[in-house]
Amino acid sequence: RINGQRLWDSLMEMAAIGATDKGGCNRQALTDLDKQGRDLFVQWCEDAGCSVTFDEMGNIFAQRAGKNPDLPPVLTGSHLDTQPTGGKFDGVYGVLAGLEVVRSLNDAGVETEAPLEVAVWTNEEGARFSPAMIGSGVWSGEFDLDYAYARTDKEGKTFGEELARIGYQGKTPAKPRPLAAAFEVHIEQGPILEAEEKTIGVLSGVQGMNWYDLTLIGQPCHAGPSLMETRRDPFMGLHRILDALYKLAAEHAPWARATFGDIRVEPGSRNTVPEKLVLAVDLRHPDQNILDAMDQRFREIAARVADDIGLEHQIRDEWRSPAVAFDANCVEAVRSSVAELGYSNKEMVSGAGHDSVYISRVAPTSMIFVPCEKGLSHNEAENAEPEDLEAGANVLLHAMLKMANK
Amino acid sequence: RINGQRLWDSLMEMAAIGATDKGGCNRQALTDLDKQGRDLFVQWCEDAGCSVTFDEMGNIFAQRAGKNPDLPPVLTGSHLDTQPTGGKFDGVYGVLAGLEVVRSLNDAGVETEAPLEVAVWTNEEGARFSPAMIGSGVWSGEFDLDYAYARTDKEGKTFGEELARIGYQGKTPAKPRPLAAAFEVHIEQGPILEAEEKTIGVLSGVQGMNWYDLTLIGQPCHAGPSLMETRRDPFMGLHRILDALYKLAAEHAPWARATFGDIRVEPGSRNTVPEKLVLAVDLRHPDQNILDAMDQRFREIAARVADDIGLEHQIRDEWRSPAVAFDANCVEAVRSSVAELGYSNKEMVSGAGHDSVYISRVAPTSMIFVPCEKGLSHNEAENAEPEDLEAGANVLLHAMLKMANK
Ligand SMILES: NC(=O)NCCC(=O)O
Ligand SMILES: NC(=O)NCCC(=O)O
Repeated sequence: RINGQRLWDSLMEMAAIGATDKGGCNRQALTDLDKQGRDLFVQWCEDAGCSVTFDEMGNIFAQRAGKNPDLPPVLTGSHLDTQPTGGKFDGVYGVLAGLEVVRSLNDAGVETEAPLEVAVWTNEEGARFSPAMIGSGVWSGEFDLDYAYARTDKEGKTFGEELARIGYQGKTPAKPRPLAAAFEVHIEQGPILEAEEKTIGVLSGVQGMNWYDLTLIGQPCHAGPSLMETRRDPFMGLHRILDALYKLAAEHAPWARATFGDIRVEPGSRNTVPEKLVLAVDLRHPDQNILDAMDQRFREIAARVADDIGLEHQIRDEWRSPAVAFDANCVEAVRSSVAELGYSNKEMVSGAGHDSVYISRVAPTSMIFVPCEKGLSHNEAENAEPEDLEAGANVLLHAMLKMANK
Repeated sequence: RINGQRLWDSLMEMAAIGATDKGGCNRQALTDLDKQGRDLFVQWCEDAGCSVTFDEMGNIFAQRAGKNPDLPPVLTGSHLDTQPTGGKFDGVYGVLAGLEVVRSLNDAGVETEAPLEVAVWTNEEGARFSPAMIGSGVWSGEFDLDYAYARTDKEGKTFGEELARIGYQGKTPAKPRPLAAAFEVHIEQGPILEAEEKTIGVLSGVQGMNWYDLTLIGQPCHAGPSLMETRRDPFMGLHRILDALYKLAAEHAPWARATFGDIRVEPGSRNTVPEKLVLAVDLRHPDQNILDAMDQRFREIAARVADDIGLEHQIRDEWRSPAVAFDANCVEAVRSSVAELGYSNKEMVSGAGHDSVYISRVAPTSMIFVPCEKGLSHNEAENAEPEDLEAGANVLLHAMLKMANK
């Protein structure tokens, strides 16, 4: 069993880096604070006897040697970057639970057959640099390195520049190596486990998600003398498209999601009808067929509304992450570990994307969830119970041991 | 009669300062380009024998002496600042038509009894620093100087700093002096004169306008796992409020206006339901009673929608400019000048705010409109016919002479 207190203390120490007034964390990818968080993690891993490397994407790998160095390692990990108004647990918990597994095995003097590895994947959130999960995405072959390096934040700084600047641009190519298995433990970020009073989520997969930029282009004109009837006003299109997309999600309730996290306006002058609105659209569904149908409907809705109002419109596909089914053996390793430990549990699908989505393309993978308070995440008030975090790390320990000693 | 070619040439020379790719002008208030535009105007006025001063708000006054220096001057003027995607005529025409009146009188060797003045009012557009018409507003006592100096642009720079930086912060107090009359000639910025094939608009007043910041505050949460039904999503409120306000404007068609020129989102992350949206709302109506009723309905709509969705909301009154009726004698001076000159014309109310709104509080005031192409303004494609601009300046000349020689 792992040491729940030490895990909690490490979580709180990490949370101090980028701590916000409202009790959350703002430690966005490739900022100075991200560097501080990485440095602390690397220090902890070296103290725990791991050998630490990082690759050209800044993904960090801390390896605890196994008895048989020829066996492919069993990997766990998640991310240390946060949302701008993020919490203390999203991602960080998965990284530090992995470290806690290593520390607990050290305490108990247990050696595994295969090596164990704890990974930190760069820019999982997609908040500073879109898309999400780009560190694991390049590593697993979904994105090119050049594409990743060229991604820009809102100030126009590139991923590549910022990675070099914080000193985490390694020389090792970001590409897959043979792995015996990969696990990731994470807070649920939704309300189901808490509502059903279950301690552990046994994940069978991840829902599909599409990101778009919808641009509506109208005709700027003066807020006073211009007649309402002849305006080509992007806001007149916006409200109808929002309405239709919320209705589309409701048609596919309870699983469909429609989210609008960001909007940009040009020229952005109070007494001028805007020329342009750019809306970030995020559509999700666990069933890839339904998500594809939603994608189709979205395009129809935008085209029809734009046409009605005389707007030009563009839909740019920013990111697509199809629905994922995890590896049956890894899922079974989690299921049997939960049973051994006697935790209440539920089989479920993740609503959020995780690095495991991309890792699952190149290695047998699965995930473990623990409840979080009121299902809140991407919120500074994000919270989780120490006992649940401990339980999740215990499941991780058991599952990793099963796969490392096979 | 004035010299239409010289007026046009001066307009084009001024338009080169801040010229945009699309044929418009971006010469926002208190920028380096605004300074260049002011410098050029001051040079032209000095060349025309005027004495030039500017006050603590950066309002510029170019005076052409009269025979009787004890008589209160007849003033004309408008503004040189533009929208970020503005045109070549909005404001600038009123300033340069005033200069053309002076030049034409010089050419003809005509002296007036009372002095004439051409004014440039600072930051009329309200695009860089809200509210609009703040230079004439302070001068006429609507706003305090401290309030004006503390206004910030989107980068947080203050009006006061920027005014000092460009060297147009004078020592003369910005406060009214006795004026015999004040006139302003402007492009209509709407489609009516063009549609009705009239050359001159004889203005009886200006419609009422209210600016607000509507803030909707929800609960940030994750775009994936968070259930749609329990979200407190500001965008869910936004689309309903937009819909209701467009319907409200339609109820009071054809004169009511509802415009949303700007929107801000926090935290602005693609996969996070926003915490906050701030929408710039501009409501207008020529009848102050109807505008007051619209104001009331706006508050009810926002409160009801916010309540339905569980959002907090705030409405901040950014600016109120009640409906204005111009001075009967000044309107009559314009009307009779138009008749003398034989131009087709229409009596109308301005849909846009103008410096004359504030000047009319402290001096007898009225305005003259000329058509603009397709009614387009606050748009780089803004355009007007040289003959119409010439006609408007002729009307201005006649009206000013009437009042200066009474
Ligand atoms: N776990 C998490 O916050 N992932 C970011 C990717 C997503 O938007 O689901
Ligand atoms: N004329 C003009 O563009 N004025 C700005 C004030 C307004 O929004 O009406």
